[in-house]
Amino acid sequence: MKKHNFYAGPSILSDYTIKNTAKGILGLDNAELSIMEISHRSKECTEMVEETISLFRELLSIPKGYSVLFLGGGASTQFCMVPYNYLNKKAAYIDSGSWSGKAIKEARFFGEVEVVASSEDRNYCYIPKKYDVPKDIDYLHITTNNTIFGTQYKKDPDVKVPMAADMSSDIFSRYVDISKYDIIYGGAQKNLGPAGVTFVIIKDDSLGRVERPIPSMLNYKTHIDKESMYNTPPVVNIFACLQTLKWYRRLGGVQAIQKYNEKKAGLLYDEIDRNRLFKGTADKKDRSDMNITFVMNEEFKELQTEFLEFASNRGMVGIKGHRSVGGFRASTYNAMPIDSVMALVEVMQEYEKGVLNNNLKK
Amino acid sequence: MKKHNFYAGPSILSDYTIKNTAKGILGLDNAELSIMEISHRSKECTEMVEETISLFRELLSIPKGYSVLFLGGGASTQFCMVPYNYLNKKAAYIDSGSWSGKAIKEARFFGEVEVVASSEDRNYCYIPKKYDVPKDIDYLHITTNNTIFGTQYKKDPDVKVPMAADMSSDIFSRYVDISKYDIIYGGAQKNLGPAGVTFVIIKDDSLGRVERPIPSMLNYKTHIDKESMYNTPPVVNIFACLQTLKWYRRLGGVQAIQKYNEKKAGLLYDEIDRNRLFKGTADKKDRSDMNITFVMNEEFKELQTEFLEFASNRGMVGIKGHRSVGGFRASTYNAMPIDSVMALVEVMQEYEKGVLNNNLKK
Repeated sequence: MKKHNFYAGPSILSDYTIKNTAKGILGLDNAELSIMEISHRSKECTEMVEETISLFRELLSIPKGYSVLFLGGGASTQFCMVPYNYLNKKAAYIDSGSWSGKAIKEARFFGEVEVVASSEDRNYCYIPKKYDVPKDIDYLHITTNNTIFGTQYKKDPDVKVPMAADMSSDIFSRYVDISKYDIIYGGAQKNLGPAGVTFVIIKDDSLGRVERPIPSMLNYKTHIDKESMYNTPPVVNIFACLQTLKWYRRLGGVQAIQKYNEKKAGLLYDEIDRNRLFKGTADKKDRSDMNITFVMNEEFKELQTEFLEFASNRGMVGIKGHRSVGGFRASTYNAMPIDSVMALVEVMQEYEKGVLNNNLKK
Repeated sequence: MKKHNFYAGPSILSDYTIKNTAKGILGLDNAELSIMEISHRSKECTEMVEETISLFRELLSIPKGYSVLFLGGGASTQFCMVPYNYLNKKAAYIDSGSWSGKAIKEARFFGEVEVVASSEDRNYCYIPKKYDVPKDIDYLHITTNNTIFGTQYKKDPDVKVPMAADMSSDIFSRYVDISKYDIIYGGAQKNLGPAGVTFVIIKDDSLGRVERPIPSMLNYKTHIDKESMYNTPPVVNIFACLQTLKWYRRLGGVQAIQKYNEKKAGLLYDEIDRNRLFKGTADKKDRSDMNITFVMNEEFKELQTEFLEFASNRGMVGIKGHRSVGGFRASTYNAMPIDSVMALVEVMQEYEKGVLNNNLKK
């Protein structure tokens, strides 16, 4: 039976990425050695990293004056590196869910944090839009997509202070005006590659604002100066990202991907809104195109486990919702084919029929 | 032509590791999905990480009371995490080469560092053995194998203070008395797997000695408490390490590997000592079994580039020495087959004959 991979992350990757990564592991054409066992200083490796950075820049239209880094340690390490490098006295954070919360917690190690807006009042089912950003802050931090709660910024905020953003779960899924940000970061394991590498897009002249001494590995300047080669980077993970980027270029770039994502998400949201058993959890205008969260309508609440089993028996993987929201979450990242979304829609329709006609076949 | 991979790191991995990692990327038997695209919270992934930790413990005979962690960020991040977590007032470091130097540099961000011994006086060609360790230090830090200078500790030091060790380039190559250390760490990319994952062996009750607040990702306690699953670990990199560990078990464990390593290194050192063109750079008693450094004898010095080309034309990869030592470096990590060492020995002999008979054929 075909599996439909709706995991929230690590998550589905394109066949192109999977096959070409396996191929590079078995042996690079130009080195006769595995991508896993060549020196990061070798020509084959440095050229590969340069190609990845170059394609990354091209696909996201990253302006001059920004560097692209590939680091280890995950976005969670960025939660502390951002304030380590940028928080002098006070930073503003928008609290749109769990990941924002973690970022806020780490920032507090380094200075004052003002949470200028939060959607906690309604279990993070919306993106806060009304807030004042004090002028004396070092930066405003946002989380552009909230995997757990299924909400997403559809537009980059307009503020008059430097911005920092965690785009772990929606980078490459939609157009982003990079010039609005001083720093954008994220783990690779949603729209880019396997877990183990973290991308950072950083405005070169945005550094140097803090006085504190910063250990070398935690100092963005180290990595900008050495072009991600200060220490051994996660080579095979970057190689896998390169395959995804090549695939994105073939798809027609971010604009084409965004359209496809809207179509996929639209299909599933339409079914959620139509189906008598289910309802979405996020406010419609803030619904994420990456993580689609829904629950059983009150009267069918006791069927949750049964539906999970029903869907699982039909190849749906990873659709159990996070415990903070409950219900279901279907993650429809860039690599998710529309056929899988249609398969899930069909399962929901089949289940609805069974329940309403009272003749359900597991 | 067969390539013989003598890279210093990232470096040769076993065919077993390479083939099984590629296989897992194409699709896990028990998940029908790629190891790169399954949730780190999935049963398949958590079981895989548990198996890796368990086998890691077994092969190194790690005593109770120690945790094994798999983190991102490389050993270079450990250079700052060790003092972040352990350096209260003063730490002692032994300076046995470049990597020690980098560790010392990062420790100085956190407190006083006393370099109790250094082999800098003779370009790090030996392991310092005579030193006094002050009683009031928080820990003594050593680098057990020095990739650049080709020296290695053959015995764990006997000191009365807690020890911290960077074993990036010789873990699993020789017997180590883990109980002598509070913390041992290293990048995977020599004897374990592809770059992108860092192992940490840590004595659970060794923490809590410093007062400073430690950001979550830099706090060992976070990772001990969550068993390396606080954030998304580098899954595919850990999976590759597991393959290497399974291969080690088949080889008969560390004891068998150590014997094989001594044999391989012995072969090459014997040739270096015999061959009229070459000489070793490290003091004999401190010669590394992992990185074998040698240069041209004075009278043949101008042949260095020619020999590199000669060897390269015969399939030798990565034998150019680091600029700090010059000459050549053949890294003979665990996965290096003795046939490759023999091939290099033959190339050295062939080249010697050609030079001495003055009829060299490139």
